[in-house]
Formats: sequence, C-alpha cells, structure tokens
Amino acid sequence: MSNNENRKMKSWVAWLLFFVTVGIVFLLGMLAASITQRRAEVASILNNKKVNITGIESRNEIFAQNYPREYESWIRTADTTFQSEFNGSSVADVLEQRPEMVILWAGYAFSKDYGTPRGHMHAIEDIHHTLRTGAPLSPDEGPQPATCWTCKSPDVPRLMDSLGIAEFYKGTWASLGDEVVNPIGCADCHEAENMNLKISRPGLIEGLKNSGRNIDNIPQQEMRSLACAQCHVEYYFTPDGKYLIFPWHNGLTVEGSERYYDSIRFADYTHKLSRAPIIKAQHPDYEIYKTGIHAQRGVSCADCHMPYISEGGVKYSNHQIRSPLASINSTCQVCHRESEETLRNAVYERQRSANEIRNLVEKELAAAHIEAKFAWERGATEAEMEEALQLIRQSQWRWDYAVASHGGSFHSPVEFQRILAMSLDRAHKARFAISKVLAQLGHTGDVPMPDISTKEKAQAYIGLEMTQEREAKKEFVETVVPEWLKKARANNRLVSRNY
Amino acid sequence: MSNNENRKMKSWVAWLLFFVTVGIVFLLGMLAASITQRRAEVASILNNKKVNITGIESRNEIFAQNYPREYESWIRTADTTFQSEFNGSSVADVLEQRPEMVILWAGYAFSKDYGTPRGHMHAIEDIHHTLRTGAPLSPDEGPQPATCWTCKSPDVPRLMDSLGIAEFYKGTWASLGDEVVNPIGCADCHEAENMNLKISRPGLIEGLKNSGRNIDNIPQQEMRSLACAQCHVEYYFTPDGKYLIFPWHNGLTVEGSERYYDSIRFADYTHKLSRAPIIKAQHPDYEIYKTGIHAQRGVSCADCHMPYISEGGVKYSNHQIRSPLASINSTCQVCHRESEETLRNAVYERQRSANEIRNLVEKELAAAHIEAKFAWERGATEAEMEEALQLIRQSQWRWDYAVASHGGSFHSPVEFQRILAMSLDRAHKARFAISKVLAQLGHTGDVPMPDISTKEKAQAYIGLEMTQEREAKKEFVETVVPEWLKKARANNRLVSRNY
Repeated sequence: MSNNENRKMKSWVAWLLFFVTVGIVFLLGMLAASITQRRAEVASILNNKKVNITGIESRNEIFAQNYPREYESWIRTADTTFQSEFNGSSVADVLEQRPEMVILWAGYAFSKDYGTPRGHMHAIEDIHHTLRTGAPLSPDEGPQPATCWTCKSPDVPRLMDSLGIAEFYKGTWASLGDEVVNPIGCADCHEAENMNLKISRPGLIEGLKNSGRNIDNIPQQEMRSLACAQCHVEYYFTPDGKYLIFPWHNGLTVEGSERYYDSIRFADYTHKLSRAPIIKAQHPDYEIYKTGIHAQRGVSCADCHMPYISEGGVKYSNHQIRSPLASINSTCQVCHRESEETLRNAVYERQRSANEIRNLVEKELAAAHIEAKFAWERGATEAEMEEALQLIRQSQWRWDYAVASHGGSFHSPVEFQRILAMSLDRAHKARFAISKVLAQLGHTGDVPMPDISTKEKAQAYIGLEMTQEREAKKEFVETVVPEWLKKARANNRLVSRNY
Repeated sequence: MSNNENRKMKSWVAWLLFFVTVGIVFLLGMLAASITQRRAEVASILNNKKVNITGIESRNEIFAQNYPREYESWIRTADTTFQSEFNGSSVADVLEQRPEMVILWAGYAFSKDYGTPRGHMHAIEDIHHTLRTGAPLSPDEGPQPATCWTCKSPDVPRLMDSLGIAEFYKGTWASLGDEVVNPIGCADCHEAENMNLKISRPGLIEGLKNSGRNIDNIPQQEMRSLACAQCHVEYYFTPDGKYLIFPWHNGLTVEGSERYYDSIRFADYTHKLSRAPIIKAQHPDYEIYKTGIHAQRGVSCADCHMPYISEGGVKYSNHQIRSPLASINSTCQVCHRESEETLRNAVYERQRSANEIRNLVEKELAAAHIEAKFAWERGATEAEMEEALQLIRQSQWRWDYAVASHGGSFHSPVEFQRILAMSLDRAHKARFAISKVLAQLGHTGDVPMPDISTKEKAQAYIGLEMTQEREAKKEFVETVVPEWLKKARANNRLVSRNY
C-alpha cells in the first residue's frame, strides 16, 4: 500500500468513526431534549395559568382552563362503561346478588340500598339518590348527619374552613344540601395555587397522628396514596357530635381497629335480629392495600389508578380514576411483561378464591343472626347470649372490613383471605354458641329458616317498608334536591351545566 | 489554525475514536469468550468422563469422579444447620409442637412419629429410624409395603427395572431392606450416559397421562420441576397390590383429587376415634406450587432450590437442595432486587398468616374427632353419624393437603389459605352436626375434653404404647438394619463409607 493509499484508508476510518459518534451524540441530545421539554411543559403550565385561582376553590370547572387534560380525564369518571362490560349494567345491585347482606345489615340503612361503586363525578348525584340518606324535607330532619358529606365534595374543605371542623360535622345532612354540590374533584387533593397534593380532610391528619406517624415532610410518592386515603379508609362518627375519626390508634390492621372500638365500647348499630352490637366497616381500601405486595414495593394508588399518559410532548396523570384493568397497557404492563389476558386472569383468580370464603361467611353469619333472634324469642337471657353476640360482632366486623374494601382481594389477597377465614371461624362459633343456648332452653332441632332467597324477600323479612322508602325518596329527589341546586347556583356555589 | 495543525488535530480525534472502538470490541470479545467457554466446559465434562457409567447406576459415589461439583454439593444435603438456625435442632418434633396432630392421625402411623423434613442424604437413615415403618424382624413382616421405599433411593428404579413395577410394589417393606440402601441421588433424576434429566418413577408418567397430559417432548425448563414432582406430590397406594398412583384424573387441585378418591371410595384409614374414612395427604408440593405465581411465571423448582453457582469458568447447579432462604443472594435475588431481610420477611409473613388459620383448624378438627367418639359411645348410629364423618373426612383432607405440603404457604399463599379456610369450614360443620346428633341422644352440654396438651398425653389418650414402639424400633435398628447394610455391601449395592 502506497503512503498515499495508507493515508486515504486512515482518513476513511476516521471519518466513519467520526460520523458514528456524531450520530450517537445526536440521539443522546434528542433524549435530553425530550426530558427537559417535559419539565419545561410542567413549568410552562404553571407559569401560563389562564385563570388565577387561590384559596379553596370548590368549583371543579374553574380549573378546566388551566389544566384541560387533567380536567377532561376527570370528567370521564362519569363513564361507567368499563363496569358495565362486566356487570351488564352501570351499577350492580349488590343486595340483589347477595340477599344475605340484607340480613347482615338489618337495623342499618345499608340493608335498604347497596350498589357497586361508581366514578367520582357521580358522588353528589348518588348520595342524593341512595335510600340510605332518607328523604329529609326540611334542613332539620335526619336521618343522617352532615358527616355523611365528608367524602363527597370539595365543598367540604371550604365549609370546614368557614364553619370549623366540629361545627361542620354536627349538623344534619340536609342542612348543607345547598352548600355541598360539587362532586369529588380538584380541591379535594390539590392546592389551588400550585396544584401540589394536599390533605384536605382532618380525619387523615388526625388518624396518622393517632397511629404515631410524624406527618411532616411526607414524601411525594406517599402523598400519591395519602390523597386517596383521605376517604378510602375505615372511620366512624363519634356518637356525640358525629366527629369523623379513623380508628388507627392501635395500628391500621383489622384487629388493631377492633381493639380500639372495643376499648371505647363502640357500635354503629344494634342488630335488629340478633341484637349484636355491630361495627359497620366503611371501606378500608388504604389499610388493606398497605398490607399487600404493591404497597410494600412502593407502588402508590395513583401509579395504577391514575397512570401517566403521554400526549405529544406532555405527560400527565390520567384523572379518570378507575380499575387498572380498564387500561392494563398503561397500568400493570408498565412493570409486568405478561399479556393482558394473563394479568387480568391473575386478578380474577384472586377474586374467585376469596369469594369462595366470602360466600360461606355470608351464609353462616346470616344464619347466626336469624338463630339468635329465635333464641331471644325462646326466652334466652342477656347473659346466655353474651358470648354468641360477641362472636357475631367479631365475625361481622371481619367480613365487612374485607368485603367493603374496594379491590381488597387483589390489593392484598393473603391478608384478605386471612380476614375472611377469621370471620368464618367466628360465624361458626356463634352458631355453635347459640345452638347450646337453645339446647338449654329445650330446643334441639333445626331453627326454622325464613325464605331470604331474594332481596325483596329478605327486606320484607327484616320489616322494611320499601315502597314507602322509595316513594319518600322520590318526593325528596323531585322537590328538595332541585331547591338545593337552585340555591347553590344563585349563591355561585355551582357552575356546572351538568346534573 | 494552519493546515498542518488542522491535520494533526484530525489525526488526534481519529486515533481517539479508534482506540475507544477497539476497547469496546475487546470487551465484547471477552463476553463472547466467557459464554462459549461455559458451553465448552459442559461439553468437555461430558467428553472427558473419567468413569464410564451406563444403565441404572444406583450408587451415588460412582458419579463423584465425573461430576465432582454436583456430587460435593449433593453431599451437603446431609447438613441441617440451616434448619437448626430456626428450629433450635436439626429436626423439629412436629407432634410435640402440635399435639392435636396426634389426635388427627389416631389409627395411622403418623400419630407415632412426625418430624420436619431433612435433606436427601438422610432418606434411608430416616426411613429406618422412623417409628412409622415399625420393627419388622423378618422379611415377611409388616407393617409397611415395599411401596414405602419408592421415593427414598435410586435403588428403586433399578429394582423396578429388574423385578417389574407391580412386583416391586407388592412385597413388604422389609423384604427389600438389603436392596434399597443408597439415599435419593443421581440416578433418580439423571440418565447415567449423558446426565439428561429423566423421569425414573412410573407414578409421575402415569399421573401425567391420567391428567390428560401428552408427555412427549417435555420442555427442559418443565423437566427441572418434574424431576422433583416424581416424589413431591400427592399419591396413594391401591388397597390391592399397593400400586402407587397419583390421583390426578380430575386435575391437580385439592378438590379434583378428592373427587377421584370419593369416586373409588378410597380411604387410607378409618379414624380410631371418630371412625371417619380418612384420606392421608402425602406432600402435594408440586400441585400447590403449580397454582402459585412462581410456577405461573415459568420459575421451576430447580431455579430456587438448586440455584446456579459459578466457580472459576464453570457454572453448575447446586445439588444441595434446600430452602431458598438459606442463600437468598443466589435464589430470590436473581430476580428480586429487595434486601435479604425484606425477602425473608415476605416469606415469614405468609407463613404467619396461614398458620393463624391452621391453628384454628387443628383445634376444631381434633375436637370433632373426640366429640364423634363421644357420640358413638352414647349410642349414635351409622346413619346419624354419616354427615359428620363426611365433613370430618373433607376437613381433614384439606387440612392435611395444605399442611403436608412443603413450603405451600409460600409457593401459593392464596391457594394455601383458601384450602385451609375450606377445611376450617368443614371442621366447624362437623362439630355442629355431631352436637345435633348428641342433642337427639339427650346430651346437650359440652363434651368432656381429654388433656392432650402434650404429645405424650395425646398419644396415651389414643392408646399408643410408645415405650413398646420405641423398644421394638431400637431392636430393629440394632439388629436388622446392620444385617441389611452388610448384605448390601457384600452384594456391591453399597459403596458408601457413611451411614
């Protein structure tokens, strides 16, 4: 090779290497640009707000112009098509599917009406329509306290701010009907000025403190769960003042909360059939999630229920909060490489397994209530019934804690089944105890069982006048609710065209 | 910049790029070399065997020279220090920890002796010493059939090959004492010629066929579990001929196997107290593992129980089969990034949760057996007891299926707890049924409960003469066993210095 050719060759290699390097650097530059562009996007959104919002702004629509993507996705929580794919209707009537639950809640409003949950956008509409809130025709009428509004609306932090927390809780539900009108939305979780996540509900702050938690400097990833934990938790209303409290004083477990309730001798109601002092579980979604593998590995509620969406150069959280199964590709598959079908079936398998235990519990526990009633009728004494009633209370607390928790059989399948198994154990023990009381009273055969094969039959058995309930509700919805909304619009509390 | 400087600069850049590229290519070459080197290592091991082994070679020591690493790690299955870290002794006496289990197995040899499992190297020694095999002083004596040897030794495939499978099963256990002498080892899972994995036990081949599985061309990764599934499964011995069969005809679930057993009206024994027809579960490790997430994601038994080790350029499977918790860094952490402590606690948490249900089951089920005995003594008839006995059978089958399964609460915690919850349900129902029978017979109070707070008390209660059992065993171990081993050495069946 001549000196010249050699030089040409070297030059050729050098240029090749040069261009390869240039190519790589270019691609790295693109990557860096795309990353900084997204940061800039967030900054630019906050720096170019079209509307200046401060304080507690309860009207969700006000946020639409500044945060159109989040707002539009939040609007879609009104959509229940995903549920209907599986249930055949937008809301399933759980009492119709499981008439035993009417028996379990005899003496409490849940025996009248209990459906599968719907999206945040329906919160106000649903609380107006459920038979559980009754039909108050004047602001002073019950049956429910104002505390029932607590989780339904960003009007609540506004009212708590102006009225005071204890004052807010202690009125009737009907007294705030023209004030609480916007469904769960922006101000429930965000500071209006900078959209930082915030805890707007005192229950969670007090609950965390009572559990021994220091609430200064909560990490952002934890806030992405705590925003939900403001409402998706177990709580109770104090008999005096209806103050809302999380029973976390002995930890966040089903047994810890039970110990707390026992220590203050609390019961939500006395069961109409068995006379057992029942604790009605709310929806301890957060507590059960905390015991599961996703929580243990640092996955937040928002990671699966509010997955990120990329639109052009913008990445934002989908505010259409719903089952992660509705968009497996943007939820599960962010971490798991399995097919949609495999992942979906993994969820269904856990549900099926837990439901096997649940089905047994509901049968045994309903029988225990009915048998206890029979024992009372036969002349059993308080002392004789004490053991059985405590067992019923324990069983029902565990059953309700599991079953009322949304998604619990997936969030923490092992804990979920443990709780149900403990419930099943207590239900059987209750029946055994009652059978002994009955034997002492001279009754050794089977206790006659009523026909509770449908919701209607079960409701008739426990003495509910459902036609009357529904008629009163109809009147309430047609006369009182429109007045509430009219007044709210007049006072500029409500700007929505909807509802 | 002069033309010369410019050329120098270009040349400098060119050389830099050149050397960077050379460096990367060199590292890639190293990687490729290390990969092919490992392949070559395997080939070289097989091409440079020091001993030529063919057919079924039952003596594990023969393989030592050709496969020193696998052999040496297999030898370490004799080591039980890992267990003793947790139990305080190399074998825990389960009956001492849980005296109710003596009651549950009354009428069956497991009520005499049941310890935690030990390593494969102990298989022969342990089956000689357990009280369950009794003390046969002559080859014709029972109590156990030859089928009990099936999972204990690579002498078994050799004997099946020479005697025939059905012939092998139908003798007494004592009749093969001088033939089955090498503990679970090489020939149980490997072809001597090429060390390919093989299925040496007809039970698995027949079981897979009965379950509808085509057993041609089983993938290698599945063989890494099926080698274990030869023994770590549920099976039973036919009453006639003691032929070993996997009850997989209706699938591999606890309910599928139960349906099969019910269909052939099978029972391992009639319970001594309750007279319930009991199915004794073996160790359905494989079946329960198959329902768990690791199996569903394609992880084999060997992946966690025989993790790869790299020594110099050689990568081999650790044949010290044991709990993956003993070497989390080479087992769990191959896939999971969490700390050893986190991973270990995740296992313990699942165990604790399942044990809560298990503890309840054992208490209820033991009571059911004792109460059934009481009902018989009070004059209950077969017809009156039928329902209760079926419930006891169902409860005990589920309990034993879960509890007898090694590692089941980790392999598949959800299925494990479901099975235990179903067992608990049936145990309670059995007690309830018995209480009704008793009430009909005029007994309505509590059934008197014996003191079964220790293993000794429970064994005395069920009528075991443990001193006699232990003395007979001592004589057997001191007189018969040495003769067996002497004869085996004389016939060149045994080359081990050990034991």
